[in-house]
Amino acid sequence: MAVEIKELTSRSENYAQWYNDLVIKADLAENSAVRGCMVIKPYGYAIWEKMQRQLDDMFKEAGHVNAYFPLFIPKSFMSKEADHVEGFAKECAVVTHYRLKNDPDGKGVVVDPEARLEEELIIRPTSETIIWNTYKGWIQSYRDLPILINQWANVVRWEMRTRLFLRTAEFLWQEGHTAHATREEAIEETLKILDIYTEFAEKYMAVPVLKGVKSISERFAGAVDTYCIEALMQDGKALQAGTTHFLGQNFAKAFDVQFLSKEGTREFVWATSWGVSTRLMGALIMAHSDDNGLVLPPKLAPHQVVIVPIYKTDDQLALIDAKAASISSDLKALGISVKYDNSQNRKPGWKFAEYELKGVPVRLAIGARDLENHTVEVARRDTLTKETVSMENIASYVKNLLDLIQENIYRKAFDFRTSQTFTADTYEEFKVKIEAGGFIWAHWDGTAETEELIKEETKATIRCIPMEGDKTPGKCMVTGKPSAQRVVFARAY
Amino acid sequence: MAVEIKELTSRSENYAQWYNDLVIKADLAENSAVRGCMVIKPYGYAIWEKMQRQLDDMFKEAGHVNAYFPLFIPKSFMSKEADHVEGFAKECAVVTHYRLKNDPDGKGVVVDPEARLEEELIIRPTSETIIWNTYKGWIQSYRDLPILINQWANVVRWEMRTRLFLRTAEFLWQEGHTAHATREEAIEETLKILDIYTEFAEKYMAVPVLKGVKSISERFAGAVDTYCIEALMQDGKALQAGTTHFLGQNFAKAFDVQFLSKEGTREFVWATSWGVSTRLMGALIMAHSDDNGLVLPPKLAPHQVVIVPIYKTDDQLALIDAKAASISSDLKALGISVKYDNSQNRKPGWKFAEYELKGVPVRLAIGARDLENHTVEVARRDTLTKETVSMENIASYVKNLLDLIQENIYRKAFDFRTSQTFTADTYEEFKVKIEAGGFIWAHWDGTAETEELIKEETKATIRCIPMEGDKTPGKCMVTGKPSAQRVVFARAY
Repeated sequence: MAVEIKELTSRSENYAQWYNDLVIKADLAENSAVRGCMVIKPYGYAIWEKMQRQLDDMFKEAGHVNAYFPLFIPKSFMSKEADHVEGFAKECAVVTHYRLKNDPDGKGVVVDPEARLEEELIIRPTSETIIWNTYKGWIQSYRDLPILINQWANVVRWEMRTRLFLRTAEFLWQEGHTAHATREEAIEETLKILDIYTEFAEKYMAVPVLKGVKSISERFAGAVDTYCIEALMQDGKALQAGTTHFLGQNFAKAFDVQFLSKEGTREFVWATSWGVSTRLMGALIMAHSDDNGLVLPPKLAPHQVVIVPIYKTDDQLALIDAKAASISSDLKALGISVKYDNSQNRKPGWKFAEYELKGVPVRLAIGARDLENHTVEVARRDTLTKETVSMENIASYVKNLLDLIQENIYRKAFDFRTSQTFTADTYEEFKVKIEAGGFIWAHWDGTAETEELIKEETKATIRCIPMEGDKTPGKCMVTGKPSAQRVVFARAY
Repeated sequence: MAVEIKELTSRSENYAQWYNDLVIKADLAENSAVRGCMVIKPYGYAIWEKMQRQLDDMFKEAGHVNAYFPLFIPKSFMSKEADHVEGFAKECAVVTHYRLKNDPDGKGVVVDPEARLEEELIIRPTSETIIWNTYKGWIQSYRDLPILINQWANVVRWEMRTRLFLRTAEFLWQEGHTAHATREEAIEETLKILDIYTEFAEKYMAVPVLKGVKSISERFAGAVDTYCIEALMQDGKALQAGTTHFLGQNFAKAFDVQFLSKEGTREFVWATSWGVSTRLMGALIMAHSDDNGLVLPPKLAPHQVVIVPIYKTDDQLALIDAKAASISSDLKALGISVKYDNSQNRKPGWKFAEYELKGVPVRLAIGARDLENHTVEVARRDTLTKETVSMENIASYVKNLLDLIQENIYRKAFDFRTSQTFTADTYEEFKVKIEAGGFIWAHWDGTAETEELIKEETKATIRCIPMEGDKTPGKCMVTGKPSAQRVVFARAY
């Protein structure tokens, strides 16, 4: 029987198609019957759960607690903060009725016109408005501050062009909403969370990111400042992986949330909000994977190790089963998640391809000869290399290998980014370089007009004004006007 | 300064008001600006997270995986299963538009009439329809079965009369949806989950439950059989704490989900679904709490132990701080969650009342004399008793005490239920007894008419046809017709 392989389009042939094939064939997600909404399949969801658990631990470690606010936002709340409604009004799912009834013509059900809501409800695209309306009841004095709350939730933004994980009408995310007595404290929180996102992206997702500030036109609707982490995908396009917003007193003013300060004065409360979403799944997939399938960093892999038996007879299988059970138990004792696949209806070759596609970091194969020689075949997903290793201390060998793989995946992505990071000193140079992709550090005069011109002419946007790296002033590549420092351009998802 | 106590209405005065006061004053939840939707506050959410984590572990241990399906259900899907739409159509939130625009009159935003959806979308009240529509693409052969999937999600049922946690328009829950090759396997799954729910209720929530089958009129809309666990609250009313449904082939037929069997025939797939929700929070609160506040079983308490220092001088506080740090560290080493509250702006009396209100199972108080005598004052929330204990081995003492408290809370609820469980042999007897509350075991002829009559005349419903206990046949208390076994009646939430 021929080994049935799920063929992926190669990255060089069609990167977008490769991504879509991979998401579908690795059983991560699929499109649903509802336009723009995806089904996150168990394997994809298991990766998301690992991300959630890790982020949640980090937020809690930094003093945050979780809570839950309503899915619905009264329409009138949306218009209380002028920039906010401007940013979100065009992509809102709106609930207008609360009942169906039998179709008088006998064809299924219809919306009951008598069950019309007095005020329409918006499915939250983000929760600043409903949360700040709630905080108004919670905050009277400086003693009630800070409030450090996070929420894990689904949100809906009616996007016209959607792509699995990267841009979907409904997505899952966490949104932090904090309230502070001072501007300084709120800014400090905004930066602290940016550091948490950076640590998560780099240490867990193995994706290097640039930290920076967004230009005004890329700011969150309602923010005073938006900070972000930006990652580079293998096709040379940037992906915004997380944002934190210093909201100033904008939402406190919109919802009249004041507090009595230590000094006895009444002040508006200072706010932040911040979020990462299932979009991170897209970043994770695109940053590391290859033409054979997913490559997962060990820290986020649902199964870190898979063991496959190679056997001809039932007696051989029984012996391998026993050995695999013993290895599995040793691995689990070291906190390593392991799957033993001795299913009989698939050949080893099929299993090898399947677990490569699924990105399992380490594969152990045990055959009859291995039992004789007291060895195991160890295959690395990241390098696709194999070696034969003694069974002696195999668990600690694998533990060490998983650390090496985590590091190697990060290093590879880091080196790729380095190789795809350029400077451009003239607009001509910029136009040529942007065609090849990557991050381009260039001088910009700080105006929305120049930013817009560059975007129109080159499809590149300012990903961020970087917080680290070269801060030398210069002259705008387009207008020649003064520039405080180089900013980072890229074409982006 | 007088100790500021948050007064609760007493249970005897007004049980419903007591419950509402408690939910608000213990910072568990509050009503939001959106009719019928609640805000789950951090302390309430922390308890829910402990429930989630435990249930999730139990589901996974039994072979289930998590996934995520869309929030939206196309209207046409709702009418594919006749009973299902009948059950849910009257309480559906309906999305009809996908955009807002500026009000031409300049007053905020209005729904853009041009952005009307071709087909309206229902916010999921439960996900059988969208999930079975998805399973159609996943199931071809018996090799694709079983599918054992769970989803943690928010759902919306437009209830007219809502109460915090017990009945809200939006609530959080888990919904399991499994697919099987045979009727027997699906029924086995339905019962296995019922056992998991029972174990969770009794061992973690410390709430004894009756396991049983629902009468036809109380069945889930679309189920062949609904199983349930029923708990008794302190006011003598029953609360349905969880349900599992054997769905037969109803949804497979509605969505045409067939598989090729081992024998080569095409068969419709067998289904189950099952869920528990934030309603469990209501059960937990009402089952154990008293007029001083919450009583939480240690296994679900966000803080199992609180330590309060009693001091007059800063020097004393410094010494107590050191001792408390050492005890905290010993407790944490035993896996016990502990909070040390040395905040200076509240007196010990206020703190004692506050942690009583919040239901922290064990309070340790340490004063200057305790330091001299090498003792700690240990107070139990469940019995409101105090004792002075040597600091020697205090951590293992507390660990043992937490087990005793968990057991005692369960025992108390169990004894209460026993004292409130009655039999009635005549309808007259039943009518008298039902007024006092409790579970009443009585014979019923199995007809919907008799069930409806009893409900109209006494407000009591059949909570379940119990799976355990007395199975002796008899005669219906109302009609005198044969009855296979006693069923359990109660007034219910």
